[in-house]
Amino acid sequence: MELDNVLVLLAVVFVAGRVGAEIAERLRTPEVIGEIVAGVIIGPAVLQLVPAHNEAFEAIAELGVIFLLFSVGLETDLQELRKVGGIATGVAFGGVILPFALGYGLMWMLDYTTNQAIFMGTAMIATSVGVTARVLRDKGKLATREARIILGAAVVDDVIALFMLAIVAGIATGSLSFGGLVFLVVEAIAFFLILGTFGRTVIRKTFPHMRRLRVTEPVLSIAIAIALVLAASAAKIGLAAIVGAFLAGVIVGETPKEEELHARTMPLYAFFVPFFFVHVGTLVDLKAMSGAVVLTAVVTVLAFVGKFVGSGAAALKLGRKGASIVGTGMAPRGEVGIIVASLGLGLGVIGQELYGVVVAMSLITSIIAPPLLAFLYGLPDGPPSAGRTSREGSENAPPDA
Amino acid sequence: MELDNVLVLLAVVFVAGRVGAEIAERLRTPEVIGEIVAGVIIGPAVLQLVPAHNEAFEAIAELGVIFLLFSVGLETDLQELRKVGGIATGVAFGGVILPFALGYGLMWMLDYTTNQAIFMGTAMIATSVGVTARVLRDKGKLATREARIILGAAVVDDVIALFMLAIVAGIATGSLSFGGLVFLVVEAIAFFLILGTFGRTVIRKTFPHMRRLRVTEPVLSIAIAIALVLAASAAKIGLAAIVGAFLAGVIVGETPKEEELHARTMPLYAFFVPFFFVHVGTLVDLKAMSGAVVLTAVVTVLAFVGKFVGSGAAALKLGRKGASIVGTGMAPRGEVGIIVASLGLGLGVIGQELYGVVVAMSLITSIIAPPLLAFLYGLPDGPPSAGRTSREGSENAPPDA
Repeated sequence: MELDNVLVLLAVVFVAGRVGAEIAERLRTPEVIGEIVAGVIIGPAVLQLVPAHNEAFEAIAELGVIFLLFSVGLETDLQELRKVGGIATGVAFGGVILPFALGYGLMWMLDYTTNQAIFMGTAMIATSVGVTARVLRDKGKLATREARIILGAAVVDDVIALFMLAIVAGIATGSLSFGGLVFLVVEAIAFFLILGTFGRTVIRKTFPHMRRLRVTEPVLSIAIAIALVLAASAAKIGLAAIVGAFLAGVIVGETPKEEELHARTMPLYAFFVPFFFVHVGTLVDLKAMSGAVVLTAVVTVLAFVGKFVGSGAAALKLGRKGASIVGTGMAPRGEVGIIVASLGLGLGVIGQELYGVVVAMSLITSIIAPPLLAFLYGLPDGPPSAGRTSREGSENAPPDA
Repeated sequence: MELDNVLVLLAVVFVAGRVGAEIAERLRTPEVIGEIVAGVIIGPAVLQLVPAHNEAFEAIAELGVIFLLFSVGLETDLQELRKVGGIATGVAFGGVILPFALGYGLMWMLDYTTNQAIFMGTAMIATSVGVTARVLRDKGKLATREARIILGAAVVDDVIALFMLAIVAGIATGSLSFGGLVFLVVEAIAFFLILGTFGRTVIRKTFPHMRRLRVTEPVLSIAIAIALVLAASAAKIGLAAIVGAFLAGVIVGETPKEEELHARTMPLYAFFVPFFFVHVGTLVDLKAMSGAVVLTAVVTVLAFVGKFVGSGAAALKLGRKGASIVGTGMAPRGEVGIIVASLGLGLGVIGQELYGVVVAMSLITSIIAPPLLAFLYGLPDGPPSAGRTSREGSENAPPDA
């Protein structure tokens, strides 16, 4: 019953995604949830209209998250991003150390092997910033300090995750080498350095002259080219493609054409982004998820708490509300968690059961974060309001600073 | 040396396409030629960086030609299209009968089998309107009578090609049935009737209310959904997807939001369309094309003359310049010719040699049409100017009506 024709498949995905988003909006839920649920319904889990693995669908979904982060980058001010650099690094490390410790500790307590414990710890640290970025953008909150901290931390988090994954893969295949790890880190740092100095200067100096090109839509074409090239380069050296796309957006956003570009990338955003979130929905595998309900619940809670507390604690300067937003924003594991799970399954480190647990954890953390973020942003501001109680209800916590 | 990573592949294709277009513009050649040549260079024919067959690349290329024809449809006025209905039908039939006769006759003279002769005749009739539509749009000529006639004729041509291909496939597989052919035609006519009456009314009545949707970018989303659904439906019943996309554009273009939509589809156009033409370039197979140089030359000349004279004669009312534009605009066989060739090869009707000949003919007719169209539009208007001499050079033919 799977759709044989790629075009029919893409039409069904797009329409389902938009219908899901519309229903979500009417239920006062973020659009992204409607799209993920639409993916669950048309995907292998329910109607089986759409396969999770189709090269064309996957490529368009990846372009979706690339245009999402590029567009978020466009709206992110580099100066402001720099100002939160220290706190963002703290948030990233806090959100790595605690989740890793919780994942490792749980597996150790349950008598899994050391390799499996290290793997579960690693699966807990990957943050998928796509979900959070989408909610922040749709709600017009990208200019808030919390948003900038989350975005900056996501970049750092990705470098750490790259490093940890290399270790896990090295242990699993027995090919762990110190030189290889150093090379990875040097490569990642070189990417950032070249981009931040040489690349940035070139783009800033040449971009305003791009109007002289005779090709149709010169400015947009160059912007798309930069986004694709940096995303592909990041992916090529093992970083997430979206980190490259985000940095491309930040740099292009420094040029004087930013306003115009923002309007002109909107249609690309509107077309591509739903594909990404519907695709996340199609990854839901009810069979794999139903295997170990209790373990899934425990891992999911630890995964959420790990980021909420670990990242949130590093952002307590913002007050409890701000720290809660940062902690919640870092919590979704999304497609990154699922990629890690697939890698572990492929390497033979974990079996079907733990695979299902990690996939379920990745999806559940992605689905609960958006409504929680919407709720947290709705809380009253003011002097550090009750961070922990913000998860409990509508209570207006008294200032306690 | 082929690029393993889809994202890297897409980045290379996009950048190569834009660079090719820019160079073409500077050489005062239509952008589309630069993109096709870029495809030849990065494709299997030369650098072998990019494979011709990659599901993601092909899907994005197909979305490219869909957005191209949708966008052309948006700019096409239905009333004006109707006014040229009769002449467009004549142009389509003229451009089917003569090329078929020439292709069939040549094969018959060269002692090929009857099946091969019928196949070659069929391969000569398919028009790829993408190339012409792109040139007309880039040059701002979509509102001319010639453009409307070409677009209308392309729709009729596609229905005839569908019918002929079914006959060829039926003969080749020994499953030709009168009932099957009737069903095909009934299906195609039903598609047009339902779209032209019920579908059109629904879209016209509901479209203005779409603003009430709460989803982001409601108008563009609905427009994209209509384009994808109609393109997929057309493809599903055996018509070209671009016929569905074109009609979607024409119908949506009747709604009051046309102006806004035109601006908002431009970024999608700028992103997707280059992929289509670069993809056409990657289909060039120098090995297959070098097999029978003389036969290729003869077939290509007959293919061009067949459309130029056959379609042009039916448009002589427009004067010689107009008729030449229509005849030239109908000449490119592009990806449609290549699809027909692949089908013939797959069915075993033709061997590698004739396959190479048809592919080469398809590409050469596509590459010579754009500069010729640009040249023809540059000729002085006025009373029927010299249609035939327009192919010879810069001579300003004297009015001879």
